[in-house]
Amino acid sequence: MILKDTIVALATASGVGAIAVIRLSGPDAITIANDCFTSIKEHKSLLDQKSHTLHLGHFMDDQRVVDQVLVSVFKNPHSYTGEDTIEISCHGSLYIQQEIIQILLKKGARMADAGEFTLRAFINGKLDLSQAEAVADLISSDSEASHQVAMQQMRGGFSNEIQHLRDQLINFASLIELELDFAEEDVEFADRTEFKALVARIQLVLKRLIDSFAVGNVIKNGIPVAIVGEPNVGKSTLLNALLNEERAIVSDIAGTTRDTIEDEMIIDGVAYRFIDTAGIRETKDVVENIGIQKTFEKISQAQVVIYLFDVTKYKVQSKEYKVELEQIKNKFPQKQLIVIGNKADAISEENILALKEEIPELVAISAKSKIGIDTLTNELTKMVNIGALNNQDTIVTNSRHYDALLKALNEINKVDEAILNNVSSDLMAIDIRETLYYFGLITGEVTNDDLLGNIFANFCIGK
Amino acid sequence: MILKDTIVALATASGVGAIAVIRLSGPDAITIANDCFTSIKEHKSLLDQKSHTLHLGHFMDDQRVVDQVLVSVFKNPHSYTGEDTIEISCHGSLYIQQEIIQILLKKGARMADAGEFTLRAFINGKLDLSQAEAVADLISSDSEASHQVAMQQMRGGFSNEIQHLRDQLINFASLIELELDFAEEDVEFADRTEFKALVARIQLVLKRLIDSFAVGNVIKNGIPVAIVGEPNVGKSTLLNALLNEERAIVSDIAGTTRDTIEDEMIIDGVAYRFIDTAGIRETKDVVENIGIQKTFEKISQAQVVIYLFDVTKYKVQSKEYKVELEQIKNKFPQKQLIVIGNKADAISEENILALKEEIPELVAISAKSKIGIDTLTNELTKMVNIGALNNQDTIVTNSRHYDALLKALNEINKVDEAILNNVSSDLMAIDIRETLYYFGLITGEVTNDDLLGNIFANFCIGK
Repeated sequence: MILKDTIVALATASGVGAIAVIRLSGPDAITIANDCFTSIKEHKSLLDQKSHTLHLGHFMDDQRVVDQVLVSVFKNPHSYTGEDTIEISCHGSLYIQQEIIQILLKKGARMADAGEFTLRAFINGKLDLSQAEAVADLISSDSEASHQVAMQQMRGGFSNEIQHLRDQLINFASLIELELDFAEEDVEFADRTEFKALVARIQLVLKRLIDSFAVGNVIKNGIPVAIVGEPNVGKSTLLNALLNEERAIVSDIAGTTRDTIEDEMIIDGVAYRFIDTAGIRETKDVVENIGIQKTFEKISQAQVVIYLFDVTKYKVQSKEYKVELEQIKNKFPQKQLIVIGNKADAISEENILALKEEIPELVAISAKSKIGIDTLTNELTKMVNIGALNNQDTIVTNSRHYDALLKALNEINKVDEAILNNVSSDLMAIDIRETLYYFGLITGEVTNDDLLGNIFANFCIGK
Repeated sequence: MILKDTIVALATASGVGAIAVIRLSGPDAITIANDCFTSIKEHKSLLDQKSHTLHLGHFMDDQRVVDQVLVSVFKNPHSYTGEDTIEISCHGSLYIQQEIIQILLKKGARMADAGEFTLRAFINGKLDLSQAEAVADLISSDSEASHQVAMQQMRGGFSNEIQHLRDQLINFASLIELELDFAEEDVEFADRTEFKALVARIQLVLKRLIDSFAVGNVIKNGIPVAIVGEPNVGKSTLLNALLNEERAIVSDIAGTTRDTIEDEMIIDGVAYRFIDTAGIRETKDVVENIGIQKTFEKISQAQVVIYLFDVTKYKVQSKEYKVELEQIKNKFPQKQLIVIGNKADAISEENILALKEEIPELVAISAKSKIGIDTLTNELTKMVNIGALNNQDTIVTNSRHYDALLKALNEINKVDEAILNNVSSDLMAIDIRETLYYFGLITGEVTNDDLLGNIFANFCIGK
């Protein structure tokens, strides 16, 4: 791991904005920046400035003014990376961003790899590994729930829990390893009753964390919802109605356009992934039957199924509708099902009441007139168990952590058995060391270049 | 113009980045930010901080931590807007950007209009109007030439020139207006010879600035280049070859994909707009003849015409090629023409030489193998007269300025005539005042809400 060079990257989103921020970190960050900077105040050098100060001036390519910039100075160790760091806030044109980065490269910086600023923060002890990973999660979080989990992890919630168990286990481990030195004398420095209690506590915590991954995964990736319905029953109108209610501001900021029907949206702080299906109408047509198989596949991947039909066609097609509903219920008894009758404003109140007698779980809406959308979102929110989130419990969202936790549990179970069976200290010590190893993988006490490479490759450049 | 409220907007490009910057400006900027900020140092308040300092802490929604942020404090008048300004550097997720802006709005800020930060900078005298306009040009500049012109304008090059003439003219105007007070005595305070010399200088400068608009327009909007050629002669391969050579880094940063054949690219610091045409092959087909009319239209809008043909087909189609070339030359004798023979690596050297005897101006290339692309770009660069740019002369790129300059010239010409014809001071004074009015429109001494509204509406939000 070389930390002697100075890295540079665009830190803000790519594209044109009012301003852009270019970040420079490493031993020569201040010297390199000073080489390209002329303060508006005469004889002012960046080399003489205190940490956490801002300086207005011109970014120069020798004698040519490239831009008027604002430079932030952070002195090691008081920066994100723990190194000397410069942030250059420039006008946000692509041309200027490119020019400034090019000139800094010419002056001796090198282009940062993905996640390299955070990697340096980890190497310099500013963050542990799970906190570093939370930074990437935080940046990609797009719902309140995923943000809250990433924030808790970044602030050390998860690491603290693991670290605490690890410290206690290390304590016992050293006592047990001490017993090895006195193996011939058959002494027990580690109180087996206390040790057993600790192992039980560790098992409990690991199981809880492992269980939380199901929720964590949903929070991170969104809850998959399959929408089953024939064409023209109003699937995209429904999605747009949901979208308008909940997502307007995010869309504004992002400048995103959302025209596909397969889409993610946030409702009450939880992300949902809506999956369009082709419906499951019985047919003898071979091609259409393949379509139905695909629909079943998509339903099997979903956590919630929305069955959407057109109430104005219920009289004519009630038989088909009922067959379809039965099919879904029989094939997927564990899936949470919401039955929606759309275009409810096109039939009379009496007809709706009659329909509800036939299908008690019916939610009658009009996607077009935005009637009943609230009821639908309430139904969705009810179906999602994110209780753990509200408890402020630690939630595992990272599959690497999940994997390490499973392995740690496996090892600690061996320790448990070893105590039960009065296995000799030397064998027990091996299992304890394995448990500690997997704990260390999570927080980064145990690490290697491959592992770090994999983790930070998933970051964006500039972080 | 209300300046009592505090405005907020995202200042960096929209989308997800490592970090995002949210800008807050106005009398309550620091108070509002302090309300949502908890420093990592105990008992540290933003209210007590010096200008141009940076502070690490948590952005809070009451008791909930929204993000770890870095806050920059700028105290009035030492900020971009001239007001108290706060910049919040947060993690770049859309969720966090949205949350922070929402909370600041809740605390009493309001969403900034497009260009409102720069509008405030203008109102507070930090920039004159033409400098403020240059800020928008600077942000949207995508070539070295357009950047250089915008930069010169932002640093006051253009304003200074106008301001200097305006000051001298005001001087004479006041002398002439003084003559009005002594109208009955028939005195001349303003030396008519000196005045005539000044008017001549003003005429000269105005004419030069007006002439520069042709170059300025090209710099700002790119040089239109029509590519004339039948399908399959390699138009898109040629554009890709040009693109790969020159634009790779910009494209990387922008994350842009460029799949249309009508495209802009930067070659040697100058922007070109390539316009695909359908070719001009003679035909009796009515529909195709409409296509040919369109091609001629596109050629008439272009400054440079590239005639592209396939050298492997020259033997069979030389007659058609020659007819087409003649047509272009006859119809557009003033257009700069480049004749390119593509797929030159598929025929022998002798054949190329023979071709060059028939068409002396031929540039033989292979777009696919990237042979001869340099020659082509040199040809393009030679054809573009951006001499004025290299002279460091002021160049007008803004059509509002162009318009005001034309009107100012019209008025100063009237003054010139008035001097010649010995017109009375009171009539002359009216024309002088009109000239001054148009000068003032450029620099912003003369302004009104409509004008400002129009100008700043073209800005992006956050600037």
